[in-house]
Amino acid sequence: MSNYKTIHSEHSHFGWDNGIEPALRVAPGEVLEFEVRDSSGGQLSPQSTSDSVATLDFAKINPVTGPIYIEGAEPGDAVSVELLDFGGAGWGWTAIIPGFGLLSEEFTDPFLNISEYDDQTVRFAHGIELETAPFPGTIGLAPAEPGYHSVVPPRRVGGNLDLRSLTRGSTLYLPVEVTGGLLSVGDTHAAQGDGEVCGTAVETQFTVLARIGLLKQANLTYPQCEVKAGAASFRRGEKGAYVTTGIGPDLMSAAQDAVRAMIDHLGKEYGLPPQMAYALCSVAVDLRIGEVVDMPNWVVAAQLPKNIFR
Amino acid sequence: MSNYKTIHSEHSHFGWDNGIEPALRVAPGEVLEFEVRDSSGGQLSPQSTSDSVATLDFAKINPVTGPIYIEGAEPGDAVSVELLDFGGAGWGWTAIIPGFGLLSEEFTDPFLNISEYDDQTVRFAHGIELETAPFPGTIGLAPAEPGYHSVVPPRRVGGNLDLRSLTRGSTLYLPVEVTGGLLSVGDTHAAQGDGEVCGTAVETQFTVLARIGLLKQANLTYPQCEVKAGAASFRRGEKGAYVTTGIGPDLMSAAQDAVRAMIDHLGKEYGLPPQMAYALCSVAVDLRIGEVVDMPNWVVAAQLPKNIFR
Repeated sequence: MSNYKTIHSEHSHFGWDNGIEPALRVAPGEVLEFEVRDSSGGQLSPQSTSDSVATLDFAKINPVTGPIYIEGAEPGDAVSVELLDFGGAGWGWTAIIPGFGLLSEEFTDPFLNISEYDDQTVRFAHGIELETAPFPGTIGLAPAEPGYHSVVPPRRVGGNLDLRSLTRGSTLYLPVEVTGGLLSVGDTHAAQGDGEVCGTAVETQFTVLARIGLLKQANLTYPQCEVKAGAASFRRGEKGAYVTTGIGPDLMSAAQDAVRAMIDHLGKEYGLPPQMAYALCSVAVDLRIGEVVDMPNWVVAAQLPKNIFR
Repeated sequence: MSNYKTIHSEHSHFGWDNGIEPALRVAPGEVLEFEVRDSSGGQLSPQSTSDSVATLDFAKINPVTGPIYIEGAEPGDAVSVELLDFGGAGWGWTAIIPGFGLLSEEFTDPFLNISEYDDQTVRFAHGIELETAPFPGTIGLAPAEPGYHSVVPPRRVGGNLDLRSLTRGSTLYLPVEVTGGLLSVGDTHAAQGDGEVCGTAVETQFTVLARIGLLKQANLTYPQCEVKAGAASFRRGEKGAYVTTGIGPDLMSAAQDAVRAMIDHLGKEYGLPPQMAYALCSVAVDLRIGEVVDMPNWVVAAQLPKNIFR
């Protein structure tokens, strides 16, 4: 009874390039299903270990499914993507990849944690359960500038936003830079904290059901998003929280200090080894800006929801 | 029936200095009431206008009540402050002060908005009601370094943290740098968003009831905080949210871009003039870090809870 088209994961590409031939052309209003491979591009399995992280082929990292040509989309417009539903593979991975992540100078060894999940719960480790809150980490349009652009950094056309607001029911608005927009989706996550501090979330293969729309002459500077009432991204306060902070004249250093303090807290209070604590920060702890005005020192807070401990 | 001591607001000081004589000495476990003046030090009233902002005497800005000498507190320990209750003046002010705030180069004219509030609701403007979520914007200990230190920047001993997690029921842990700790409290807010982007919250006079404790040899790098289940700072998703983003290699610029987009959104969707929108961002919109790992571009999100519009 599906009255939507499916974009299979064979129609994927690495990096962004407005010269890539569209996999499909759709009219605004159409519903599409994207088959999305996990961000390792299938290189990891539930049996993988930390050694598997060390041998990852980075040329195959973060494939995105698409691109979709949206009829009528022109520079200055916005493509809307209403995220209707997700269907997941049931397992996901969280890695510390040497050279990558907020504390890459301190965490230099590869590390891998495998989670299982269903519609409700991600079992991250014994006694640690996260709310399943699926979203595409990477969702974007092709940039105006010709040629190949790495998939790693997000841009004003979106891409690797890693914005956990993009859960079921949310609508993302992306600024169009080329005719047709050229939408692609990838890097699906079963759960993530604000900041994605170790560089990976609960990375997993998902199908993403989405309604594509078009707002003429929206003239957005950057992506924007409507989050539905009661969305998963709000429900994190039932058992309270523990907050660490970092303070100083550089927001990046303050973010690092807040995460360092949280890793220390997770070790002392819950007995988590440092790599496991860092990975847990990436999937469950939220980075918030306390203040960014009290010159010259800013406050970054790392907030741990306590309902993840069983 | 009060079995606690009150520190009256006459016992206040401007800036931090470990040479200031303590207003009181207490043992760990004692409950204290702090009378806190608003951050203008009484210079503004419900009848004040934008012109009043232009003539503020900055020598009288942000008085803090204290300091309190905590018996047994030594460098390396942490002073805990459990925030038990707040009693407010019923009105507060939000100002754009020239030269101060995240977008100080764009908002160069003084602006003032007066709010009324009760225990439940801050009436910020016609049709805009925020949840009352009181907390002390400034709460800290004396720094080890002798001499006067401006009250404006927060430090590892706390101070102008502007961390809205510090609501009723929360417990703050502050690293001690001098014998006795020397705790002071000020800058009380009836409501604020993460970031306090225009530089002021709903600034108001409050009494703060708090239990003072001591953790020996806690060795904190920066302040930390325990947030109670169901705290006001969690309840912001009932009607959904609208999220703008800023993306780029500098978190500060990304934060500015996210707030610029939110000011634009508040103008288009709700008809708010720019100064009013900027001030509303400061008291109701939360700055979150989307990702801080996808080199070289980071994502800052500004999240507007939609339950503030009536």
